[in-house]
Amino acid sequence: MANYLFGVDVGGTTVKMGLFDKDGNVLEKWEIPTRTENGGEKILPDIADSIKNKMTEKGITKGDVIGAGAGVPGPVDGNGVVHRAVNLGWGEVDLKKELSTLLDGMRVEAGNDANVAALGEMWKGGGQGHQNLVAVTLGTGVGGGIIINGEILTGATGAGGEIGHIHVEDNETEACGCGNFGCLEEYASATGITRLANRALAASDKDSVLRGGEVSAKTVFDAVKAGDALAIEVAEKFGEYLGKGLGVIAGVVNPEIFVIGGGVSKAGEVLFDYIKPSFEKTVFHGCKNTIFALATLGNDAGIYGAARLLL
Amino acid sequence: MANYLFGVDVGGTTVKMGLFDKDGNVLEKWEIPTRTENGGEKILPDIADSIKNKMTEKGITKGDVIGAGAGVPGPVDGNGVVHRAVNLGWGEVDLKKELSTLLDGMRVEAGNDANVAALGEMWKGGGQGHQNLVAVTLGTGVGGGIIINGEILTGATGAGGEIGHIHVEDNETEACGCGNFGCLEEYASATGITRLANRALAASDKDSVLRGGEVSAKTVFDAVKAGDALAIEVAEKFGEYLGKGLGVIAGVVNPEIFVIGGGVSKAGEVLFDYIKPSFEKTVFHGCKNTIFALATLGNDAGIYGAARLLL
Repeated sequence: MANYLFGVDVGGTTVKMGLFDKDGNVLEKWEIPTRTENGGEKILPDIADSIKNKMTEKGITKGDVIGAGAGVPGPVDGNGVVHRAVNLGWGEVDLKKELSTLLDGMRVEAGNDANVAALGEMWKGGGQGHQNLVAVTLGTGVGGGIIINGEILTGATGAGGEIGHIHVEDNETEACGCGNFGCLEEYASATGITRLANRALAASDKDSVLRGGEVSAKTVFDAVKAGDALAIEVAEKFGEYLGKGLGVIAGVVNPEIFVIGGGVSKAGEVLFDYIKPSFEKTVFHGCKNTIFALATLGNDAGIYGAARLLL
Repeated sequence: MANYLFGVDVGGTTVKMGLFDKDGNVLEKWEIPTRTENGGEKILPDIADSIKNKMTEKGITKGDVIGAGAGVPGPVDGNGVVHRAVNLGWGEVDLKKELSTLLDGMRVEAGNDANVAALGEMWKGGGQGHQNLVAVTLGTGVGGGIIINGEILTGATGAGGEIGHIHVEDNETEACGCGNFGCLEEYASATGITRLANRALAASDKDSVLRGGEVSAKTVFDAVKAGDALAIEVAEKFGEYLGKGLGVIAGVVNPEIFVIGGGVSKAGEVLFDYIKPSFEKTVFHGCKNTIFALATLGNDAGIYGAARLLL
């Protein structure tokens, strides 16, 4: 009986791949380079070759494989068609159909990488045991993935869960990367925290371990843990915006749990100390008990979630 | 073959009922009083009697009926259990099971009234042709219902779509009915618009037809249509908050369409002139083309949606 799943996380530099059994145990992980030249035309053939080679190496036959799932950095519709993935050089690519053909008819499913990572955290990560969750990725930007009753919320144009660009500040004067002003990403991403810290440093003469040294999300939260007053102010500002934003999201989709991942989340549970006060202050009372947890799969969330697409 | 559906909208004063064919044509509509005394123990028996009487009157047999759907003013979980409906006098009521027993095993489905109304607008109202929509009810309060791929988004605790209490203003000094400060409902409901108008009247000496007369959402938008400058300021404020709030909602669930209903929506499409500027200014670009439409079913949305629960 078919027991194996391939999970594929297609990034702009490397393609992460995993071989799983259907209980979600990862049997092997590997990477191949992403060849983005010529409109990324080699990416799917490279993935197909790598899967076939792995099957040969392991003595796995087509009948043993449930399928291959893939997460890609761009909007993916309900039919597994990718609508533009800039980092891959792709315009419209019928991933589900093309990859299946390259794999001699193997079943293929596809989704947006942030959504797929959310599914991974639900399956085997910080969201285990929950079918309604919002995954929040605090990295260079702020990404998100929403799972409702165990299914990805894709949205009408594949923009479901694009929570980095919800509006949280009316009086922002610097534009977000998206062109708008006052997006959540401007305060809650690694870049946003750095910006908040630089603003705070410029606005006061207060002594701080951040002064003169490297200013980053990491150094800010290290300083918070060391009791640095200015860094704590920055963390409060970060938490005010993120707590408020997550409060609104809770009022809209009412998840059981928020799973917080991305580079910033390496600071650990201290983040929650700064997020929860403004969350609890502003959220609808029916959503006050939403759980906060840290993501646990790190960069592997994508391959787990991609495999989970097949179940 | 079974062709009939009963749609039941349980309100605090009356129960609205409708007999539909499975294409969504309403064959008959009627109402019975809601008897809320003794913990509302008569409500379900009254509904069952009324359905049975209608079947007898119409010569419809049990085999002709697909089932009965019900919308109730309170959270309803995925098993059709109501968790407290204050206006009905109900604590926890297993509506699906109890009503089905009273109807000799007829299939019963249940949902929250705002969510069910959203489903009705999708089926036969302003949202026809769309499977991903957010219904917004601007009445005494602000209610909402979210439909994803044709299904109600219930949420972990039945609070999905409770958009009246998303936080949109940090500097509010008057509390919302829910106890928080700065909820959308404080600016976008009929009550909220009246409050904004009274604030505007108190804050300036500007001439206005609203001065000295009745101040309500209706008189405000009548004055807007007559070109009253102060009323237009109020409408701008209303639209700023609602547009911003809907922008956030769009960034989270990415619907195809917003369907705006409730008493305030009687003002008509002029509302969109005030909502859209701040929506377009703040929403994530991938959601900018979300459609705005008016609800068309009025108070019948509930019975339509309740019947639709069965399909």
